[in-house]
Amino acid sequence: MANSLYDFGMIGLGVMGRNLLLNMADHGFSVIGFDKDATKTGALESAATPGTTVKGVADLATMVQLLERPRKLMMLVPAGQPVDDVIASLLPLLEPGDVVIDGGNSHYTDTLRRVKYLREKNIHFMGIGVSGGEKGARTGPSIMPGGDQDAYAKVKPMLEAIAAKVNDTPCVAYLGKEGAGHYVKMVHNGIEYAIMQLISEAYTLLQKGAGLNNDQLHEVFDSWNKGSLQSFLVEITADIFNQKDDKTAGRLVDMISDKAGSKGTGKWTSQDAMELPVAVPTIDMAVAMRTISAYKDQRVAAEEIYGDPAAIHVTAEMWIKQVHDALYFATILSYAQGLAMLHEASRELQMDIPLPEVVKVWRGGCIIRSSLLEVFTQAYQQNTDLANILLDKGVAYLVKSVEANTRSVVAQAATAGFPVAGFMSALSYFDAFRTGRMATNLIQAQRDYFGAHTYQRIDMPGTFHTEWNQ
Amino acid sequence: MANSLYDFGMIGLGVMGRNLLLNMADHGFSVIGFDKDATKTGALESAATPGTTVKGVADLATMVQLLERPRKLMMLVPAGQPVDDVIASLLPLLEPGDVVIDGGNSHYTDTLRRVKYLREKNIHFMGIGVSGGEKGARTGPSIMPGGDQDAYAKVKPMLEAIAAKVNDTPCVAYLGKEGAGHYVKMVHNGIEYAIMQLISEAYTLLQKGAGLNNDQLHEVFDSWNKGSLQSFLVEITADIFNQKDDKTAGRLVDMISDKAGSKGTGKWTSQDAMELPVAVPTIDMAVAMRTISAYKDQRVAAEEIYGDPAAIHVTAEMWIKQVHDALYFATILSYAQGLAMLHEASRELQMDIPLPEVVKVWRGGCIIRSSLLEVFTQAYQQNTDLANILLDKGVAYLVKSVEANTRSVVAQAATAGFPVAGFMSALSYFDAFRTGRMATNLIQAQRDYFGAHTYQRIDMPGTFHTEWNQ
Repeated sequence: MANSLYDFGMIGLGVMGRNLLLNMADHGFSVIGFDKDATKTGALESAATPGTTVKGVADLATMVQLLERPRKLMMLVPAGQPVDDVIASLLPLLEPGDVVIDGGNSHYTDTLRRVKYLREKNIHFMGIGVSGGEKGARTGPSIMPGGDQDAYAKVKPMLEAIAAKVNDTPCVAYLGKEGAGHYVKMVHNGIEYAIMQLISEAYTLLQKGAGLNNDQLHEVFDSWNKGSLQSFLVEITADIFNQKDDKTAGRLVDMISDKAGSKGTGKWTSQDAMELPVAVPTIDMAVAMRTISAYKDQRVAAEEIYGDPAAIHVTAEMWIKQVHDALYFATILSYAQGLAMLHEASRELQMDIPLPEVVKVWRGGCIIRSSLLEVFTQAYQQNTDLANILLDKGVAYLVKSVEANTRSVVAQAATAGFPVAGFMSALSYFDAFRTGRMATNLIQAQRDYFGAHTYQRIDMPGTFHTEWNQ
Repeated sequence: MANSLYDFGMIGLGVMGRNLLLNMADHGFSVIGFDKDATKTGALESAATPGTTVKGVADLATMVQLLERPRKLMMLVPAGQPVDDVIASLLPLLEPGDVVIDGGNSHYTDTLRRVKYLREKNIHFMGIGVSGGEKGARTGPSIMPGGDQDAYAKVKPMLEAIAAKVNDTPCVAYLGKEGAGHYVKMVHNGIEYAIMQLISEAYTLLQKGAGLNNDQLHEVFDSWNKGSLQSFLVEITADIFNQKDDKTAGRLVDMISDKAGSKGTGKWTSQDAMELPVAVPTIDMAVAMRTISAYKDQRVAAEEIYGDPAAIHVTAEMWIKQVHDALYFATILSYAQGLAMLHEASRELQMDIPLPEVVKVWRGGCIIRSSLLEVFTQAYQQNTDLANILLDKGVAYLVKSVEANTRSVVAQAATAGFPVAGFMSALSYFDAFRTGRMATNLIQAQRDYFGAHTYQRIDMPGTFHTEWNQ
């Protein structure tokens, strides 16, 4: 009878849940999935690789009974109430020592609450971020687990088996306590928002600024993906410009609405960064620009009033090189902001997030994988507690190598009138970060002037208030 | 005996509560204040103008008994639990029909909750934003009330009496339902953060970029305050550069630490804007820059690695004019973002905030009062439901008049390396807002490529998904 028990269970057989489970089965684990929707349990079994052990059931209790003890099961359901509902249904069916994983995009505070709640019942609850989209789930995602070390040890073999591999190293590692997995995934998504915004700005600058058509844009991004900008997002961008529209004679990208959607994880990153507080301005701007994209009618009316951008006055060849460097610069700055946020959160929220492991996990499988993560991996090898990667000499060398062209792109975009909120926020973060003495002394003076909020001095300790302008 | 009852009561006699109460007494109302701290009740009475009726008591029940029915009383205590504590103490002492006002910086969601809770007990609860600092409270603040219209009618005479006056019009008006008063005050503070950040950037550009000393900075800001930039914040900035340090031979501003504090209302504005969602990037950047100001050690280390900004290559005279125009542009954009947020919040959160009244209330008494508010008042006279003031022709004329110099300042700051996150965010908001077709179609394509998030088309209704790169 023991042989008929399954190694791993999945609750929720949407495309992500199904693909993760099939991935696990491909690596020799026997798996069972539950979904109330019989078409989904059927789809699971029919998609299984021949010779693998995959079962779909429409009854939760049946699935739980058929799992090897201690049970290891994951839910992949929409964040929020559905996760709590699944937990409520599961609780009467579980035994002490079982491991329940939330593999969705839950907010880390919810995960924290659930970890504590289930700990009282001797159930291990883990929040695990999974990135890679549908295809990544099937062939090798990046996996960001947080929770008890003991619980992680029980699921480690399965997670390492299904994760993406970089030089034979699986893109999964224990990333910290309690909500750490979902926190790291949230920041991953914030960086993803930022880089997508930056790529869209490069697109504007090349298309409208230099007049490149979709074929030329494909070639530019394809060549960039073979150099220092090598990354999943640049790679798919090259593909996108090539995609024919099946409804018209043109390219699909030109027929897609410019109202951008979002599922809220970028917003969470910005909001939680402000709460810490830590500064992630390029993520903030990515969130803001998606919001502005929804003001279609107002934007069209404003264009009537304010007109179009002017031309860029450099050769296309030089412009492409400069925009490349600005994208490289701002991408590094986006990672810098996100990683600095994790550094601060790890300390402030007592999550013990190992940053050297985070950048290794992100090297493969996930949406923000890029060759830059090898650079950051080396930086954290030099200093495992690096507060900001901009302070690493290797990173500094790369940043300085593209700084001048970045300044040139921002200056020209400002002059001509192209919206480059992401590039500008990256540059202004950089310029503020490298300013030993900022102008914020004036803000402290203002606050004390009108609100008696007091200030500190540079030459002596203490808190001071002045009766200004007496 | 009726003659011995007081018109208005105040709970919490810190400097703001005391000054508001004395202001009311100066306008002929008899007032009573409660504070557990006897030095504060004493300070209240001794600061009263001779001939006015002002009493301080150290017992809450005594104060409540001595108020005219229906009672009108305000609390000015720290936001959060203290407000709930006061409400709990008050409840057994009140009668149906009494009006309780929270005059502090409470978050509007707390106010909403308290309004509903006290409505069940037939007590009117109003959230009222008060701006103007200590001096404004004493001589004429800007007052932003929200709540029941009935309750407002009861306190209107007192509020109109104490409010700042612009052309004999009091800077107070009914600003909407339930949490609207605190919402408007929160956005006021967000705009305040943005403008303070912009002024600090102008300071950097003039001081470090053009080498102006404090005397010259005083003169520049003083002259700006006599022109189109006339405003409270520019006025006090001019004063600040003049302020001598009483501990050294220099100016105080140079001795103040550049680590800027905050009480969180700017952060709330950004976080709540993202929640709506609505874009307020210049407020976001103001919040981010205060955060970066705290990274003193990292900034000093980064300056070692990355060096200082370069010089600005225009004459000081021209630079001062250009920076003036950039500050004017970015200040308008800060109001535009904040007012657009109120427009959206009014609709989304059903608060019925009258924007024409908001800008009138802000014309005097408050921290963000400026001559620009007359311009905006005219804009809302043209269109009471204006979604964004950038769409008003009068505002557009002003924006266009300074657009070229703003672009020049941002381009030169980017080239030289001065941190101008506020100016850049204002310009990139403007350039995105006036773009009829943004580049966010690419973001939608990316989202559909890696996450099957679907997209809309420009040529037909519906939601589409593509199997990319097959």
